[in-house]
Amino acid sequence: MAFPQVEAFRGGEDLVRVVGHRGARGVLPENSMIGFDFTLSIGVPLLEFDVVLTADNVPVITHNHHLHAPTFRDADGQFLIGEEPKVSSLTFEQIQKFDIGRLDGQTAYGQRFPDQAQLDRVRVPKLVDLLDLINAPENGNAYLMLELKSDPDLAHDTTYRESFVGRVLRDVRGTGLSSRTILHSFDWNLLAECQRQAPDLPTSYLTQLPENADDPGEDSSKTICPDFRGRRDDIPHLVKDAGGAFWCPYFADVTAESVALAKDLGLCVVVWTVNEPEDISRMIDLRVDAIVTDYPGRVQRHLSDLGMDWQTA
Amino acid sequence: MAFPQVEAFRGGEDLVRVVGHRGARGVLPENSMIGFDFTLSIGVPLLEFDVVLTADNVPVITHNHHLHAPTFRDADGQFLIGEEPKVSSLTFEQIQKFDIGRLDGQTAYGQRFPDQAQLDRVRVPKLVDLLDLINAPENGNAYLMLELKSDPDLAHDTTYRESFVGRVLRDVRGTGLSSRTILHSFDWNLLAECQRQAPDLPTSYLTQLPENADDPGEDSSKTICPDFRGRRDDIPHLVKDAGGAFWCPYFADVTAESVALAKDLGLCVVVWTVNEPEDISRMIDLRVDAIVTDYPGRVQRHLSDLGMDWQTA
Repeated sequence: MAFPQVEAFRGGEDLVRVVGHRGARGVLPENSMIGFDFTLSIGVPLLEFDVVLTADNVPVITHNHHLHAPTFRDADGQFLIGEEPKVSSLTFEQIQKFDIGRLDGQTAYGQRFPDQAQLDRVRVPKLVDLLDLINAPENGNAYLMLELKSDPDLAHDTTYRESFVGRVLRDVRGTGLSSRTILHSFDWNLLAECQRQAPDLPTSYLTQLPENADDPGEDSSKTICPDFRGRRDDIPHLVKDAGGAFWCPYFADVTAESVALAKDLGLCVVVWTVNEPEDISRMIDLRVDAIVTDYPGRVQRHLSDLGMDWQTA
Repeated sequence: MAFPQVEAFRGGEDLVRVVGHRGARGVLPENSMIGFDFTLSIGVPLLEFDVVLTADNVPVITHNHHLHAPTFRDADGQFLIGEEPKVSSLTFEQIQKFDIGRLDGQTAYGQRFPDQAQLDRVRVPKLVDLLDLINAPENGNAYLMLELKSDPDLAHDTTYRESFVGRVLRDVRGTGLSSRTILHSFDWNLLAECQRQAPDLPTSYLTQLPENADDPGEDSSKTICPDFRGRRDDIPHLVKDAGGAFWCPYFADVTAESVALAKDLGLCVVVWTVNEPEDISRMIDLRVDAIVTDYPGRVQRHLSDLGMDWQTA
């Protein structure tokens, strides 16, 4: 069975795909509609983003299970201080009171994105807002890498898992975008549930070796990721055996051998999150299928300079 | 007489304006409609751009008098090689055959903008294309810094000068944007002609000290700029005496004293082109009125981190 949404991410000899990470986090607020719009407007039709459920069961696009203090401001325009409330404890309407248009430059996280435009009155989007955008005629070539963010507190709750996957699929199917969506997660149990409920949607397996450090300010997903200690060279096989279509390793984890093995197994190799020029060059040299980046323009520049493409004509 | 378009660029104690240079050259192709759209979309409503006349007398938005080889590709997708044709030797229709969506990474100029998105089928816009965009209801707060690029070959031709200024003014007046446009140039004779034909449009005087180097790949305008050797400290007086509303010095030329003097004279101080973090910080410390930058998001980040604004509410 050939999945069009898998082929949309597959590279070639002179083709490495570019995937906008949370839209284009280096340029615009992450997981915002304006960020998705920008990425599509520059000819990068592959979008990665994160989905979490609100208390009233609305799939929204945001990265962390808690409102992320360095990017969430309250109604008074102040970045959150103290305990970050859980997304799942708030209704969609309550979450709309927060503004995600700026970064707190006092935090290590904020300092990572010195070029990001700063806006006001930017709100957490619903998953369906993005799905509707993708359905616009001018975005007919766009494809989605939809990350389901598994709640670590509920990682072993099968009822939650079923209902989360079901709720997300309702939106994807309701907007007719099943053939343009990949389901993507660090949580292999959740991906198994995706396959059970939606055999027609390919799955994408995020991995990160325990020895490689997380970027500052990121919500680690290592607790829900399998333990790969001692199995580094087997990961592509594990993904294949689990029924995955994509292997999505942290870029620092891959080697020429592991990329070659994954490709031999028919997997798409999609690396994240590649922002530094030397890392971009290395990933292009390795001919990964696709590069997930906060700076899609920067990766385009690298490919353009090499006479390579990121899209087929 | 108070000009609204002058006040739109004036800073304050906690207010330094941000002006998108050629749109946002660090992010998107320079002097392109997609670049202007982006800059407006991030809440930066002040745009700087360059106007040149075609052979059939159409004001178009492009920086150099010759098609700029590092940014112009022919119908076969190749960057120009050999002699660059003059804009004034080509009709608007001929110029539309060139694509300005990418940078040639083999050139020093191309290497200056490593994050610029690379696009295809991007065309040189007409001045009226931008004026029409500014007239859209959502851009009601936008103001234009319209640079008239004086042809060095015709610098002393008064007939050319009259007709160039007249043709540009026809577009500005025809779209009803006189009160939202500043006329901006390195050529003080041309600015005198602007004042003669359009006393209702304020003028902006670009200056660059001969001892400060041009950025790589730029078309120097020093030949049409007055010679400021030995008159460095007098420049604000010279601008004021010439009837200028803005003094637009190269950022490396200004000092605390010259900024203070210019402000005392009632001039707006608008510095260009400020891209490096330490230079942005210095210009903010000096409380220039406005910063012209290829990276508007970067300047927003600096101001946001300092609790400062770039727009009044």
